[in-house]
Amino acid sequence: MKAIGIDLGGTNIKVAVVDKKKGILEQTSVPTNAELGRDHVLDRIAATVNSMTEIKGAIGIGFGLPGMVNLDQTTVYNPPNLPGWDAVNAADEITQRTNIPCRIENDANVAALGSLHFGKGKQFDSFVMLTLGTGVGGAIIHNKKLFKGTQGMAGELGHVIIDYHGPLSNSVTRGTIEAYVGQRFLSRFATDMISQHPNNVLYKRFHGNFDKLEPVDLTREAELGNDLAIEILMKTGQRLGYAIINYTHILDIRKYILSGGVSKAGSWITEPAKEIIKKQMMAPFQVDFELLVEDLGNDSALLGASGLAFDSFA
Amino acid sequence: MKAIGIDLGGTNIKVAVVDKKKGILEQTSVPTNAELGRDHVLDRIAATVNSMTEIKGAIGIGFGLPGMVNLDQTTVYNPPNLPGWDAVNAADEITQRTNIPCRIENDANVAALGSLHFGKGKQFDSFVMLTLGTGVGGAIIHNKKLFKGTQGMAGELGHVIIDYHGPLSNSVTRGTIEAYVGQRFLSRFATDMISQHPNNVLYKRFHGNFDKLEPVDLTREAELGNDLAIEILMKTGQRLGYAIINYTHILDIRKYILSGGVSKAGSWITEPAKEIIKKQMMAPFQVDFELLVEDLGNDSALLGASGLAFDSFA
Repeated sequence: MKAIGIDLGGTNIKVAVVDKKKGILEQTSVPTNAELGRDHVLDRIAATVNSMTEIKGAIGIGFGLPGMVNLDQTTVYNPPNLPGWDAVNAADEITQRTNIPCRIENDANVAALGSLHFGKGKQFDSFVMLTLGTGVGGAIIHNKKLFKGTQGMAGELGHVIIDYHGPLSNSVTRGTIEAYVGQRFLSRFATDMISQHPNNVLYKRFHGNFDKLEPVDLTREAELGNDLAIEILMKTGQRLGYAIINYTHILDIRKYILSGGVSKAGSWITEPAKEIIKKQMMAPFQVDFELLVEDLGNDSALLGASGLAFDSFA
Repeated sequence: MKAIGIDLGGTNIKVAVVDKKKGILEQTSVPTNAELGRDHVLDRIAATVNSMTEIKGAIGIGFGLPGMVNLDQTTVYNPPNLPGWDAVNAADEITQRTNIPCRIENDANVAALGSLHFGKGKQFDSFVMLTLGTGVGGAIIHNKKLFKGTQGMAGELGHVIIDYHGPLSNSVTRGTIEAYVGQRFLSRFATDMISQHPNNVLYKRFHGNFDKLEPVDLTREAELGNDLAIEILMKTGQRLGYAIINYTHILDIRKYILSGGVSKAGSWITEPAKEIIKKQMMAPFQVDFELLVEDLGNDSALLGASGLAFDSFA
């Protein structure tokens, strides 16, 4: 069985034809040129879909994009970095241009579907996906399906408070996990810590250029035994642990899968998270608890988008 | 249609025959004598059920009790204040003694079912119930059903962190909403605040007897215009607001119903909660948001237990 996956980002539109068993058969990428507006982007996506040589026999299109998506998986509201998109029935727009049925879903939910169909999530009926990128996104899979709540917006896990007098992140909510673990905020926290340690190699390398500091630099240093890098990642992991306790006490879902750039720190953040969870999560919820890192890599969004099509049209 | 509701507490066993339309037809209460052990309590419950004059035609028994209950709604684990109950299939034990099918559910979930079948929850497909008593319990109703998660324990809403370096409550988790809003902790917080205001009438009344201070005393004083009482309840409501933001961002359920002793403070806590929610909850989740106080009173547990029977056996 084949389906088409679309991954719409601020920079590129990616399209793939995906086989349910074999994975990606064909993929292509074109620039988004978001500044040319909504119709340009939709036309561009459809033209790219229609140009795929493997398109024959595809049962439907799954379309991943930023923003909040309604329960029906048709309409997106105010997607960031896409000027001119307010409330768009993007599923209909794509179907009109391709004659193929389409469902849309937001980035984090698509990442979870990628994991569910092709990654670490295959082994679980229910799990929570945390996408640790510039922001922190989330998705809830319950009994092999997305849990979307009453209006489609469940799983805004980055906006869960762990310290109500904590720092602001992008959102209006203070002290959310995104304000500690989102890449931008992690870099700011790391900058603060490193600035206090002028003898550390990280200070010497990044002083005056702290905007160039990325999580991967911390991981590399941690692997070389740099105590400061280890401490920064440890504190980040501990805060992630508090957020995971909150999700678990509410949802009673005990499998967690991390993805996104910051997740590449791997056990430097997952081990401290697990320590906090072991200490502070209620005992009955510890049974069967697992925290994993997804390794589908860059294809995860295209695979997840095709998974949405398999779930919707198979 | 009739069902039997059981409410097992540390002090009393209450049993009622409930009509789906008319409500409670008959009820009785006997002492629990929990110290006499599990079998004594189970025998006592069954004898009370069997003694009800309206029992004929009841379709089943719903049984509410403290503790965590499995997905099947048959087995309770380590219920507090019931010595000798470790893991008990209480549903089977009751059915063996009464020949009536039985399902069990924990206190907070039963309170939510009471609201769903007979109270403020009737008007909603999905809502979150918060029981503000000695501890803080929670329950999630999604599409008219209890959301129980993967192993039956979802909705431990009192154990959701709002400040990870905050105070300890009963549990191992720091800075949970229970550690601010649970009756014992609220009284402690009030004692701290009042101790600093020796001219306040609350100081004069409770100095040396702060263990006698109850939330209702704060509400009464707030209604008389006592600024200190108003401030204590305001801070309590604000903290409740942060917890509600967390539940909403995760679940996308936008209707909240409060019950339990502390909820009797009414708008003295709901208004400050709403102010925090208005400021710090993400805008899309504000649409259709409601925060209500249940007024079913003491019958809520019996009504909810019968609701469990209607849901299970009708």
